[in-house]
Amino acid sequence: MGAYIAVDVGGTQIRVAVFPQEGIEPLSQKKILTQDKNENPEDRLLDLIADLWPAQEQVLGIGVAAPGPLNPKAGVVIKAPNIPSWINLQLTDLIQKRFNVPVVLGNDANLAALGEWKFGAGRGHENLIYLTISTGIGGGVICDGHLLLGQYGFAAELGHVAIMPDGPICSCGQPGHLEAVASGTGIANYVIEQLAKGTPSSLSNKVLPTAKDINLAAQKGDPLAIAALERAGNFLGMALANYLHIFNPSIIILGGGVTQSGDLLFKPLKAALAERVMGPEYLWNMTITSAALGDRVGLLGALGLAREL
Amino acid sequence: MGAYIAVDVGGTQIRVAVFPQEGIEPLSQKKILTQDKNENPEDRLLDLIADLWPAQEQVLGIGVAAPGPLNPKAGVVIKAPNIPSWINLQLTDLIQKRFNVPVVLGNDANLAALGEWKFGAGRGHENLIYLTISTGIGGGVICDGHLLLGQYGFAAELGHVAIMPDGPICSCGQPGHLEAVASGTGIANYVIEQLAKGTPSSLSNKVLPTAKDINLAAQKGDPLAIAALERAGNFLGMALANYLHIFNPSIIILGGGVTQSGDLLFKPLKAALAERVMGPEYLWNMTITSAALGDRVGLLGALGLAREL
Repeated sequence: MGAYIAVDVGGTQIRVAVFPQEGIEPLSQKKILTQDKNENPEDRLLDLIADLWPAQEQVLGIGVAAPGPLNPKAGVVIKAPNIPSWINLQLTDLIQKRFNVPVVLGNDANLAALGEWKFGAGRGHENLIYLTISTGIGGGVICDGHLLLGQYGFAAELGHVAIMPDGPICSCGQPGHLEAVASGTGIANYVIEQLAKGTPSSLSNKVLPTAKDINLAAQKGDPLAIAALERAGNFLGMALANYLHIFNPSIIILGGGVTQSGDLLFKPLKAALAERVMGPEYLWNMTITSAALGDRVGLLGALGLAREL
Repeated sequence: MGAYIAVDVGGTQIRVAVFPQEGIEPLSQKKILTQDKNENPEDRLLDLIADLWPAQEQVLGIGVAAPGPLNPKAGVVIKAPNIPSWINLQLTDLIQKRFNVPVVLGNDANLAALGEWKFGAGRGHENLIYLTISTGIGGGVICDGHLLLGQYGFAAELGHVAIMPDGPICSCGQPGHLEAVASGTGIANYVIEQLAKGTPSSLSNKVLPTAKDINLAAQKGDPLAIAALERAGNFLGMALANYLHIFNPSIIILGGGVTQSGDLLFKPLKAALAERVMGPEYLWNMTITSAALGDRVGLLGALGLAREL
């Protein structure tokens, strides 16, 4: 029997799992911290793969999900926001040289889309938009049955679109991006701004409330926290209407920590989407749903990519 | 020898051409007015095809470019803005029943993208964005070597994206769309608004200057006309930066009457694009160019589609 190895690299943890040729239950898996003062992250990753290397099964390929920007076609991590030493790292080459099996690399948000498409909430759809809303906003798109990559694989940066000419500055440095107004960071920045203006809120005892604090306050009825989620929902609905016009998908899948706010986010989001869509035909056979794979999405996306080898 | 028939339906004219199995020089072609008080447009179209039907060659397929919204997969024109009687018209069926050969239908802007990709400025590219900027703004996208369609073929409406929450109202009824600020109509509306405010301009003698009037005035140095093109260029650059992040194309092709303003539009467009792009990697190997096929683009797009049959 053959096997596939899936690797999910994050700023905090590296996970590796061995999967059988079919099915999504891992034969074995393990996670370790990404950073260690005695060893660099890429060596830790290589050693963890070696550690889990199956004795019986032949490894048919290795799929790797890593934070972007990265060039999946060249197998290069250009810059990993939370792994400072990874700059133009030839990650695919490194792994291939050590283990001598085919290796494929993908951006974590793109592979999350692929994972949800092949194994999760998006099964059976040919046109799918995946948005992960957490500290930032990442995206992945399946269009007409293909993972959208673009010439170097930099496509589908769905959080990095300007939806107002002069909005708040995004983590990427640009003004008015969706991420800057509707990510956890964007929501928190808005609340901090309003608190500084003296808006009354149960959050005023916190110097720097996080998106999690804001969610908790909103669930307890705090008006500023509720308004902040509503504002984010509005912008998300506006951006998703744009994406309906651009991609005409049959499903939108929303993941990431901020979606745990539930209806306080989803109600304004769906209302804004319905209001902003330019024709009813874009809502024909169109579902909005939550991601189904939880924190397995990175590994399963990497598995999905490896199985395409 | 086999032949293909290409049909380009516009609000004013219907063009039909017969093409050989290879190459893009038509064997014969003809155009007629779309509207006639004694005959409906679809009968005129069918008769024109019959009129040009080749005596020698076997017709292998018919490709039709028509104004949208239309459903290419079902072969239905949902609504044609300038042909009021075409509502949910089963155009593919009509043609197929009469001539008994395979027929394919496509949205005119999508097929323009396909035409430029196969025969024009976009040859050899796998990731291409086409924008036609005239009365409205239409779009077409080739991603990873496929024409982007979406579940019903309503995708790639690149002019109908909100780039500001409360901008001018678009022809589609939605606020803040790119089309509302950067199409010929959007440019003219801006100038009319400024004239009403008393902004001095050589255009003040015209009650309702058109985009063409504004272009002429701008070429002669009129400051309001120049400012109007600059503003449109700015918004186009902002939207195109978004499309670089969404599609990571290797070429952007710009067509449509408004692009005849040349550098007065392109300079601010390129400056805004360079300023708004979030990383230099999106500009690697990325060309911006003008459409190459002129008014043949509809027929050649329809030909390209028919040859995929």
